[in-house]
Amino acid sequence: MATLHDIGVAAAINILSAFAFLVAFAVLRLQPFNDRVYFPKWYLKGIRSNPTRSGTLGKFVNLDYKSYLRFLEWMPDALKMPEPELIDHAGLDSAVFLRIYLLGLKIFVPITFLAFAVLVPVNWTNDTLESESSKSSKLEYSNVDKLSISNIPQSSNKFWAHLMMAYIFTFWTCYVLLKEYEIIASMRLHFLASEKRRPDQFTVLVRNVPPDPDESIGELVEHFFLVNHPDHYLTHQAVYDANKLAKMVEKKKNMENWLDFYQLKYERNSSKRPICKTGFLGLCGKKVDAIDYYTSEIERLCKEEIEERDRIRKDSKLIMPVAFVSFRTRWGAAVCAQTQQTRNPTIWLTEWSPEPRDVYWQNLAIPFVHLTVRRLTIAVALFFLIFFFMIPIAFVQSLANIEGIEKVVPFLKPLIEQSFIKSFIQGFLPGIALKIFLILLPTILMLMSKFEGFVALSILERSAATKYYLFLLVNVFLGSIVAGTAFQQLNTFIHQSVTEFPKIIGIAIPMKATFFITYVMVDGWAGVAGEILRLKPLIIYHLKNFFLVKTEKDREEAMDPGSIEFASSEPQIQLYFLLGLVYAVVTPFLLPFILVFFGLAYLVFRHQIINVYNQEYESAAAFWPAVHVRIVTALVISQVILFGLLGTKKAANSTPFLIALPILTIWFHLFCTSRYEPAFKKYPLQEAMMKDTLERTKESNLDLKGYLLDAYIHPVFKEVEDHDDVYPVGDIENENILVPTKRSSRRNTPVPSKYNGSSPPSLADVKEQLL
Amino acid sequence: MATLHDIGVAAAINILSAFAFLVAFAVLRLQPFNDRVYFPKWYLKGIRSNPTRSGTLGKFVNLDYKSYLRFLEWMPDALKMPEPELIDHAGLDSAVFLRIYLLGLKIFVPITFLAFAVLVPVNWTNDTLESESSKSSKLEYSNVDKLSISNIPQSSNKFWAHLMMAYIFTFWTCYVLLKEYEIIASMRLHFLASEKRRPDQFTVLVRNVPPDPDESIGELVEHFFLVNHPDHYLTHQAVYDANKLAKMVEKKKNMENWLDFYQLKYERNSSKRPICKTGFLGLCGKKVDAIDYYTSEIERLCKEEIEERDRIRKDSKLIMPVAFVSFRTRWGAAVCAQTQQTRNPTIWLTEWSPEPRDVYWQNLAIPFVHLTVRRLTIAVALFFLIFFFMIPIAFVQSLANIEGIEKVVPFLKPLIEQSFIKSFIQGFLPGIALKIFLILLPTILMLMSKFEGFVALSILERSAATKYYLFLLVNVFLGSIVAGTAFQQLNTFIHQSVTEFPKIIGIAIPMKATFFITYVMVDGWAGVAGEILRLKPLIIYHLKNFFLVKTEKDREEAMDPGSIEFASSEPQIQLYFLLGLVYAVVTPFLLPFILVFFGLAYLVFRHQIINVYNQEYESAAAFWPAVHVRIVTALVISQVILFGLLGTKKAANSTPFLIALPILTIWFHLFCTSRYEPAFKKYPLQEAMMKDTLERTKESNLDLKGYLLDAYIHPVFKEVEDHDDVYPVGDIENENILVPTKRSSRRNTPVPSKYNGSSPPSLADVKEQLL
Repeated sequence: MATLHDIGVAAAINILSAFAFLVAFAVLRLQPFNDRVYFPKWYLKGIRSNPTRSGTLGKFVNLDYKSYLRFLEWMPDALKMPEPELIDHAGLDSAVFLRIYLLGLKIFVPITFLAFAVLVPVNWTNDTLESESSKSSKLEYSNVDKLSISNIPQSSNKFWAHLMMAYIFTFWTCYVLLKEYEIIASMRLHFLASEKRRPDQFTVLVRNVPPDPDESIGELVEHFFLVNHPDHYLTHQAVYDANKLAKMVEKKKNMENWLDFYQLKYERNSSKRPICKTGFLGLCGKKVDAIDYYTSEIERLCKEEIEERDRIRKDSKLIMPVAFVSFRTRWGAAVCAQTQQTRNPTIWLTEWSPEPRDVYWQNLAIPFVHLTVRRLTIAVALFFLIFFFMIPIAFVQSLANIEGIEKVVPFLKPLIEQSFIKSFIQGFLPGIALKIFLILLPTILMLMSKFEGFVALSILERSAATKYYLFLLVNVFLGSIVAGTAFQQLNTFIHQSVTEFPKIIGIAIPMKATFFITYVMVDGWAGVAGEILRLKPLIIYHLKNFFLVKTEKDREEAMDPGSIEFASSEPQIQLYFLLGLVYAVVTPFLLPFILVFFGLAYLVFRHQIINVYNQEYESAAAFWPAVHVRIVTALVISQVILFGLLGTKKAANSTPFLIALPILTIWFHLFCTSRYEPAFKKYPLQEAMMKDTLERTKESNLDLKGYLLDAYIHPVFKEVEDHDDVYPVGDIENENILVPTKRSSRRNTPVPSKYNGSSPPSLADVKEQLL
Repeated sequence: MATLHDIGVAAAINILSAFAFLVAFAVLRLQPFNDRVYFPKWYLKGIRSNPTRSGTLGKFVNLDYKSYLRFLEWMPDALKMPEPELIDHAGLDSAVFLRIYLLGLKIFVPITFLAFAVLVPVNWTNDTLESESSKSSKLEYSNVDKLSISNIPQSSNKFWAHLMMAYIFTFWTCYVLLKEYEIIASMRLHFLASEKRRPDQFTVLVRNVPPDPDESIGELVEHFFLVNHPDHYLTHQAVYDANKLAKMVEKKKNMENWLDFYQLKYERNSSKRPICKTGFLGLCGKKVDAIDYYTSEIERLCKEEIEERDRIRKDSKLIMPVAFVSFRTRWGAAVCAQTQQTRNPTIWLTEWSPEPRDVYWQNLAIPFVHLTVRRLTIAVALFFLIFFFMIPIAFVQSLANIEGIEKVVPFLKPLIEQSFIKSFIQGFLPGIALKIFLILLPTILMLMSKFEGFVALSILERSAATKYYLFLLVNVFLGSIVAGTAFQQLNTFIHQSVTEFPKIIGIAIPMKATFFITYVMVDGWAGVAGEILRLKPLIIYHLKNFFLVKTEKDREEAMDPGSIEFASSEPQIQLYFLLGLVYAVVTPFLLPFILVFFGLAYLVFRHQIINVYNQEYESAAAFWPAVHVRIVTALVISQVILFGLLGTKKAANSTPFLIALPILTIWFHLFCTSRYEPAFKKYPLQEAMMKDTLERTKESNLDLKGYLLDAYIHPVFKEVEDHDDVYPVGDIENENILVPTKRSSRRNTPVPSKYNGSSPPSLADVKEQLL
């Protein structure tokens, strides 16, 4: 077991590497030629433009030595922006994501103080480990263990202190969670209420429109909603199966990139026309003149694209049984989204439409019956992925040994047989399969979620996050505690009695504290510090900049601001919550490490969100219920483990009092769910009515139909819309049904706020205007 | 273990007792003076009146000997009425309740044939039990066991037959369940669609109206819905806290009964004024003249009642924060019931209003926050009730012994000490506490459900049924298989590993077959035959008839038609489903007994529903999802048990194929839920709109406000409304806002059907009228 000294060394190493990352970042971010890597958000907002400094060198390298002295100044900068401005700047999703780290601090700062004030002295003032190790020389222990619950003698009355602390920690966590849920629910509602007009406020996604022999889907939708929502229906937007077209556009873009690359190459060295191969990845096939080849290919694709667009416009089979139906009022949309339309609950399914940029177009055509089959498939697949993922990896590992390689590529044999390379391959290969798998895992999980058929990116991310959380919980947390692969554990657990589960984990938990401390430092501290450096985007940006960029617009496209990547980062935070809550009572020594993680990560991600990330969509913190339920799960897991641990310690008179704790916690969760979750799932009619009334008063001559007309068209059509009208738009001529009135009663309308959403005037104002 | 002979004897006894009940019923039902006990439904419908036959004796006893010869004629009679007429006669709830028995027949008739054709020969053609019993003389077996899976040797390949049958039985059950769910969902939707106009179609129950300092609850409700549902809101009905008044009315009625009783007594023997005591239950207190006493008491209560009514009208504190809000259209009500009204999901809670007679008035005022606490309390209480109910009973049993009784009532000592009485008490007392508990159990569970705060009788019954089902599952099914009390079992199970559970039960299951056969005969056959005799209502009716009845109206009230009592009878049926599915593969010999039960029960209950029961409310088969999920649960339990059983039989090569079965079954359930459950939970807008349109066309001059005005008043107010107007009715004067038009476009309106609901004309008719 690691001693305090070992941990100190590990901490020093990790602090140094984190520090190195920070210093590297501090230097790199000051260089003008990296400006677009470290401040893309500002470029995208149009506030920042290319730095212009004197001298050729000054364009690329920052020569102002003073700025290097203040290399940590980004930290206070990151904290400066107040939260409302942050919401305006980066959206509510990002602001609430940061609050997860803050929540970690809120929960664990008091717990740490209390644990060090009460539990550490209680644990320290025993000599169980000393006396036991003197009895049997085999038992080793470290000073860390002396601070932990292991140092309390069997059936001691001191366990009452741990029991009490478990209650206090639980109540504190629940209290903070409750407050946070309340704050975030109200933030979300305020955000939604103060938002500007957005198409999704008026729009409902209708899925599984039943086929009709007499009417086209467009007519059917129109008639259905004119009959069943006569006072509210406004218009609808059909959805076309443009997946093939989207692929073509993608391919053309890729070709254009290559064309740019070769043209640039030719410009720099005009003596020789660039040559390329037409086969797989440019590795094989016959050689051709690259510029001519790509020019002709692009021309061909352009023609095909136009044909495809034409086909989509004419072929009614490519209209999917899905539509975005818009209503005259938010009230009408809120009603339609929350109600069932027909007897048969599998057709005319209505739900709130996601934001236009949040829509995942490919999944819109999946029929309802497929969905249940797909979910079952993925559930089974996920189970096998979590519990048996080691099997294929072990298989690949068994293949990827020296002999295997020699068999496949015999001509490499002399090279491989050299002892240095041989030992390198032997040491390196077995690990690499696992590493590749772990790197690919979030992508695999996202593909699984996509297969399940969710229709919005935000839902996809949330679903992938849940899967990743389960994977981490089983394979990192339980897997580290109980030795062996997850499959072996499963086998062990099945053959143990129910009450043995928590006991097995309970016994192992205190022994694994030092391992998890190291884990927090490596994965948490250094990982977070690495995040700020953005090594991968940095390299890719410079490669693109060198090979592809010709115009300012190209440079714009070469920027990759990235986003938070909720699907992989949130589950990782949850692991720290779990560790913190589990070890709070058992080994409080772990808590400060968790605190440092939360503090550092908060700083880093706040900086990144302000300066770098550009969210693809805005879900108005729709992920919070998932975050909440996972912290509650961590709480229950920690209680069950403590129960098992105390059971092995024969603390018979205190243990039974722990039973109430999980019951109360689960009940707390149910209470929170019924109280706050509707704010994330439903859209209250009162709010809708209020916004409608306001809008009618403020903008009585609004052309809503025109506003909504092309809000929900496939992005492939949107891109070309500017220059040619190949997109099949239906009834623009109907637009001028709405006659704009010239009423000039805008006296009381408040000045639009400078933020994203105009703050709503008070109800009194509205009443005054109405009278 | 019981042999075939033992079972034959038991069957003979039970068949005889069931036959005796049926003969007694056949004789009693023909007596005119029992007519109101056995045919109350027809009296309530006003179709049947008191039998008038010649002679004094003929009024009471049926002298027509021919009618006795056809004493089983009720059976074909019960089957004669076609289902649509039955729905019209007794409501959809009753008709669908009968379909549960039919479902039992549908599932088990083919299963029985198949099991007897395949499994019985497979089991019979082995001699495992014979050879084993010859080895060890201790092992006893019967012919029943020779037919069961116990007779198959260890790790035989014959288990493939059982495995295959398990799959076939599961698929058949699921298929029948699916079809049944589909039929019942469409029956429900058709029933709702073809129903006459009913107040609950237009009405939404609003709970937790927030307090407002400026406005009364009535004003608040009106303003809120006028603002948020401006085009649809019609009127609302406040709810008064009339629980005290209801108690007074109840008390007065009781007093009036006693007055009637003494007056009748006095009339028959006018020589002496009847005397009664005023104290507890008329056992102690001072003696008074009974007629004078009750007359004055009733007068006093009348005055108090008037005061209370006055107080309710004036005291705004007695208006509860609850209201029944009615809308102009069914569409408006459907929208309001399915949507969230405000930001805060704990106020302005809207849900479909139950039928007026289905409302459970006492629970209407429970605040939302209390509900979660109450549910938690009841969940914990239910757990203790199920697993520890033996503890208080054992305590009572320990008190209720001879010595205990002698201590409490020493003067009875000489009597008790007599040997006959002593042995009787000793044999009788220990059982009686348990028996009383079991008789009281449904009442206790109903009280628990009431405490949980459900607002409709139908929901209360469903909730109590769930609780009773859990109790039966744990204490009757598992309790009979694993010896010992439920608490001991729980302890056993907790200390066993997970995979041991099904094994323990799997081993015990075949051995308990004969016990369950006897159980089916006693509880099922004889119990159902006893049901038709209606012994308790028979006795009570004749007592009331003798002591209280003076007028025809009194006789009407003395009738107690009763109802199905879903809360206790449905869980009992479920037990038979469970037994049938579990033993289908293990001991097919049990199946015919189950079949007889389902057949007999179907006959008996069909007769009772046609002639006797009078449902208190109509929920349109809202209970079906619960029935469905319990049969699916039984299916999964049977699969898990079979898995455990085959595990002990070392059928290693066939057992793993069973794993897919529960997964597929659960997935089947999820599919059914998503497909059919919405029909029981939601009210589709299309249906609402169709009915609205129809009604507008057919009855354009309908005074809906007048129709809905007093639909939802507390029954206490309703009773007196006829003779005096003490009920606080608000705005009758507003009624004449609706001006009846004189349009005479009723040419196409169909003739109202003679059934309960007028069948809707086809849409073509409506269109024709609209044009």
